[in-house]
Amino acid sequence: MVKKIAVLPGDGIGPEVTEAAVHILKAVAKNTNQQFEFHYGNIGGVAIDEEGDPFPSSTEELCKSSDAVLLGAVGGPKWDQNEPALRPEKGLLAMRKNLGLFANLRPVKAYGPLLDSSPLKREVVEDVDVLIMRELTGGIYFGKHEREQVNGEWQALDTLTYSESEITRIAKKAFEAAKLRDQRVVSVDKANVLESSRLWREVVDRMKTDYPDITVEHMLVDNAAMQLIHGPSQFDVILTENMFGDILSDEASMLTGSLGLLPSASLGDQGVGLFEPIHGSAPDISGQNIANPLAAIASAAMLLKYGFEMEDEAKAIDDAILKALEAGYRTKDIATEQGAVSTTTEMTEAVIKALR
Amino acid sequence: MVKKIAVLPGDGIGPEVTEAAVHILKAVAKNTNQQFEFHYGNIGGVAIDEEGDPFPSSTEELCKSSDAVLLGAVGGPKWDQNEPALRPEKGLLAMRKNLGLFANLRPVKAYGPLLDSSPLKREVVEDVDVLIMRELTGGIYFGKHEREQVNGEWQALDTLTYSESEITRIAKKAFEAAKLRDQRVVSVDKANVLESSRLWREVVDRMKTDYPDITVEHMLVDNAAMQLIHGPSQFDVILTENMFGDILSDEASMLTGSLGLLPSASLGDQGVGLFEPIHGSAPDISGQNIANPLAAIASAAMLLKYGFEMEDEAKAIDDAILKALEAGYRTKDIATEQGAVSTTTEMTEAVIKALR
Ligand SMILES: CC(C)[C@H](C(=O)O)[C@@H](O)C(=O)O
Ligand SMILES: CC(C)[C@H](C(=O)O)[C@@H](O)C(=O)O
Repeated sequence: MVKKIAVLPGDGIGPEVTEAAVHILKAVAKNTNQQFEFHYGNIGGVAIDEEGDPFPSSTEELCKSSDAVLLGAVGGPKWDQNEPALRPEKGLLAMRKNLGLFANLRPVKAYGPLLDSSPLKREVVEDVDVLIMRELTGGIYFGKHEREQVNGEWQALDTLTYSESEITRIAKKAFEAAKLRDQRVVSVDKANVLESSRLWREVVDRMKTDYPDITVEHMLVDNAAMQLIHGPSQFDVILTENMFGDILSDEASMLTGSLGLLPSASLGDQGVGLFEPIHGSAPDISGQNIANPLAAIASAAMLLKYGFEMEDEAKAIDDAILKALEAGYRTKDIATEQGAVSTTTEMTEAVIKALR
Repeated sequence: MVKKIAVLPGDGIGPEVTEAAVHILKAVAKNTNQQFEFHYGNIGGVAIDEEGDPFPSSTEELCKSSDAVLLGAVGGPKWDQNEPALRPEKGLLAMRKNLGLFANLRPVKAYGPLLDSSPLKREVVEDVDVLIMRELTGGIYFGKHEREQVNGEWQALDTLTYSESEITRIAKKAFEAAKLRDQRVVSVDKANVLESSRLWREVVDRMKTDYPDITVEHMLVDNAAMQLIHGPSQFDVILTENMFGDILSDEASMLTGSLGLLPSASLGDQGVGLFEPIHGSAPDISGQNIANPLAAIASAAMLLKYGFEMEDEAKAIDDAILKALEAGYRTKDIATEQGAVSTTTEMTEAVIKALR
């Protein structure tokens, strides 16, 4: 059966790195009996420019009629002064919400050949294998965002809410993921301050009985931010709410040395999944064929694994990435001072070669 | 003139480390012509046990009638199941609010002799010298924290507000601090999502004209969490709101290798200042004379500097800490595998000796 993939390149380096990922998926199709169709759509700044909306309904329909969505990145200085509704990020947030993508999976695992490019010591990062399970359609991201005059001055208000069902469904994803991994969940909150965190803790505690083999620990977010540096290999699955997940996953990405390496998947309970590198649009290096395509390529692997249940094909991509790194290919962001630097296309070719 | 210092030892290792700091202050008094009086009060768990309130009015009065407050730490498993109003942290939050301590200063600077105890590589941390200026009496910490039934399930709500005047006064502290340092402020927010962050950014931008010599940059909190690991020496003063400051300062503390080293000051526009180590009560190691007293001792130095404008005396303490470390004294948390381990009292004695 032909699988339909919606490709949303977006802004900055988005088009270059998604093109790399598409190449890889085509190579996978060639090597196996899979058939993929690629359909392109707009999102972010380019969608604002071309369709006047960061997440146009044409794109939404494309996504909903596809089997998976591959995204590049959104944003750039061109749109930074736009009003909130016409900002590229708004497209991403609308997509998450409208497609019901409440679970954001961000795996962080150090690649052996790159261990020394982390700012952390080798012995601190070498055993790192964390999956961050971030809630993606609730919390303060989707609350009220208002401004009013109070006593003659402006006051801004943001609201953070979580309901039991929102917490339950994301916690379930974390527990299920832990089952297939090292059976440990650390749930991160700020229960000593936030009511939403106290509810979060209660719901997670209640669910423990359904997962007797999973070890559950609660950790305050400030402590988690510390532990991620102090002893990152202590973590298996980190379960957390939207904003904390945003902060901690970017922090955790540094364990591997470069943001240019990390993929992500955003999933709902059914329907289409979204797969994207966690790096942004990096406008300063766009169009120069120097961006690291590996995060986008690894996102294509997640697409095969979580979107199409093609575990073997996914693993083939992950192995090929490792082989390309072992063969010494390095884009600028992960190059050592002495080493040669590969372009985006060279790195992509190296992965394709390793795939065969 | 005799200076009156309120000492609130609190819970866990709080009493041990504040005692160490008091010893140091007494040694400073002896070596100089300063006179300090110490008056003890309860806060946190011990205050709940003895006075039924984590921040009793007797303690509040003591603080208000003092020239500075020296605090240990609050909290412990004994009180973890208490209702929110009777939890030790509530005492800390009430104190911050009631004493108007809106500015929390957390300096992070690596001590030369300890560079290798950081999980980060030496070259990443050796030039680190950051001052985190965290807003401490506003934001989501002091919003609504409620729960209600919606569609047959519980929903929790927390609210985050900031007003122009709240932002102005903390930004002013950051600008003023930068003037005495490297003239650079990075203001951290999440302006692509939060209205409070957008207001924050506007207010900070408006104030730039009053500080033409200060370079101001805005950074999203997720990026800041990353940059703190990727290139921490890029920062001079980090200005941020309450919750982001909580997370980032704990993360930043790891740059120095141990939370046991970092002091903090909480200040208002006038009135008494509060000085405390940023580590918690560490109940697991309390009462064993093994806690690291250096963060509390460095807090005493901040007390002299910011509370009493005794710059020389403060510097004498900071120098003495460095000398004790150079002489090889190490408490358990910063000891190397081979090296000897000092007790809390031995480390304190070493600093006192170095003071002379
Ligand atoms: C662009 C922004 C709104 C987004 C977020 O905060 O979720 C990004 O940082 C991410 O993590 O995907
Ligand atoms: C104890 C807790 C409420 C407190 C905070 O979050 O402010 C602590 O983490 C701190 O940073 O001083």
